[in-house]
Amino acid sequence: MWSDRPTMSSTVLALDVGGTKLAAGLVTSRAELLCRAEIPTPETDDPEVLWSAVTGLVDSVLGQRGDLPFAGVGIACGGPMTWPRGEVSPLNIPAWRGFPLLERMRARYGIGLPVAIHNDAVCVAVAEHRWGAGVGRDHVLGMVVSTGVGGGLLLDGRRIDGASGNAGHIGHIVVDPAGPPCRCGGRGCVEAIARGPAIAAYAAEQGWTGEASGVGVARGAHAGDAACLGAFDRAGRAVGIALASAVAVLDVELVAVGGGIAEAGAVFFDPLHAAFREHAGLDFVRRCEVVPAGFGRGSSLAGAAALVLDGRGSVSRFWDVDWSDPD
Amino acid sequence: MWSDRPTMSSTVLALDVGGTKLAAGLVTSRAELLCRAEIPTPETDDPEVLWSAVTGLVDSVLGQRGDLPFAGVGIACGGPMTWPRGEVSPLNIPAWRGFPLLERMRARYGIGLPVAIHNDAVCVAVAEHRWGAGVGRDHVLGMVVSTGVGGGLLLDGRRIDGASGNAGHIGHIVVDPAGPPCRCGGRGCVEAIARGPAIAAYAAEQGWTGEASGVGVARGAHAGDAACLGAFDRAGRAVGIALASAVAVLDVELVAVGGGIAEAGAVFFDPLHAAFREHAGLDFVRRCEVVPAGFGRGSSLAGAAALVLDGRGSVSRFWDVDWSDPD
Repeated sequence: MWSDRPTMSSTVLALDVGGTKLAAGLVTSRAELLCRAEIPTPETDDPEVLWSAVTGLVDSVLGQRGDLPFAGVGIACGGPMTWPRGEVSPLNIPAWRGFPLLERMRARYGIGLPVAIHNDAVCVAVAEHRWGAGVGRDHVLGMVVSTGVGGGLLLDGRRIDGASGNAGHIGHIVVDPAGPPCRCGGRGCVEAIARGPAIAAYAAEQGWTGEASGVGVARGAHAGDAACLGAFDRAGRAVGIALASAVAVLDVELVAVGGGIAEAGAVFFDPLHAAFREHAGLDFVRRCEVVPAGFGRGSSLAGAAALVLDGRGSVSRFWDVDWSDPD
Repeated sequence: MWSDRPTMSSTVLALDVGGTKLAAGLVTSRAELLCRAEIPTPETDDPEVLWSAVTGLVDSVLGQRGDLPFAGVGIACGGPMTWPRGEVSPLNIPAWRGFPLLERMRARYGIGLPVAIHNDAVCVAVAEHRWGAGVGRDHVLGMVVSTGVGGGLLLDGRRIDGASGNAGHIGHIVVDPAGPPCRCGGRGCVEAIARGPAIAAYAAEQGWTGEASGVGVARGAHAGDAACLGAFDRAGRAVGIALASAVAVLDVELVAVGGGIAEAGAVFFDPLHAAFREHAGLDFVRRCEVVPAGFGRGSSLAGAAALVLDGRGSVSRFWDVDWSDPD
């Protein structure tokens, strides 16, 4: 999917801000990545230190191809955020609470250009719809199962934002009302069971003494460790139940599931599909395909670029409005 | 809301087909009901006997105001159905399996006119959005808790149909994976716990010996009967949990809940709100208002009319296409 060959004029500067890493790149409307840089997210309490890391990263990308113009700026960031204003308070980045990321990016890189921001899981869903498993489908749920569980919706071929930009928070579907507390403040959310740290904690409770991470437990499951298999079974089943509920409400034709936990493969997808079949009774729900994400790594960066692309792959002037005015 | 005064030229012939009753009327774009007739749904296995009852009913409405023109035809019917073609197989009407209701109505009453059909719960949601509790809101979930549990979605001010016209099936959100079997073929769906017959059965198990219906149990709950209160508590909590999940995925600003069970009032809404608050952790979910439906009785009939109205209240020519061609 990635290429070093610039073929389209509609190139977008894309930024992906996550709790683990920061990534930036120049992305074409065919999802070609013309240049890219990535650094670990600095551990800091100072919002300006983190902002300096972002600008250093973006400047290094632009320095790689100093003469290459870009026609818009797209930003993926962990939630929550005020939307579309883009004041971000990522759960996993305590340094930024109400940080005006969209405005800072606009002022430094996007004056006169369309600039847009969205939840990183929404960006993944947009990339899946445009370039991944959802190509040619008008009704798609894109989902990420990783350190958290998130998602984004495309219905009737259009991105669904919701009243406050938060549509697609599939991680907070309740799959067990008596289940574990969730970091959202609720209880029994699918995220509280299926996120990587929850899988690791459950495997450890069941006797797993290897690496206490989602990836470590995935390796254990692939090696046949019963505790690790049990943890993935529990997580996959929780996601399958959540999807039976979500598909009944949304009537999507396809769910694309990505993220580090989903990359474990059959140990995750087999119990997911089994639980989905058990709970999906209605024909239209059973017809929905639940498949691994097709885009792969880098989908949140590519999806960030897609935020400012229109249906034909041009940078949309629709976005060229001043979101900075709160009223 | 209803009136006998014709004030708008955009009058629609509306039909509502339910398992208990058939209703028809002429409805204006201000939700004024110019004339109306209703009969119990005939108990028959013969699809043509039922169709004759429908035409007799509609003819009687048109006979009341023979000179009043109508500009379109809207139909609400229990699901499932093929959509938008309108071949209906209502769960509670065994006589019709794949019955071409839309085409029959078009051929008899709607030649040259826009004719549209939708799930009756979607029609209720449309009526709530246009004339009821959802007026002025762009992101609304309308819900019916009655013999079944259904709903419809309006996001960004537009009705959401889904890939097969089935979006909004909120009754099949799983609220207890180990819960009772649901008539959909799944297990633990909110409908299996909160529909009227399930409330009545649970109250009877708990010792209620009065009328074994949702209405009977509601009367018992209002009189302070512990078994009836327990049954409504269980149903209201199930709906509250389902709504916490649905609002997380949809980011709607308002949920309007109607139907015979919701009309029981506080014995239903108090546990609903309590469970919603327990499970809704994210700010945007907690901000969503969950309120009783504002339109009241007749909303599915009015919503059926709204299917062919555009944003300005005129009958939309958009609908004037021949859905009868399956390809």
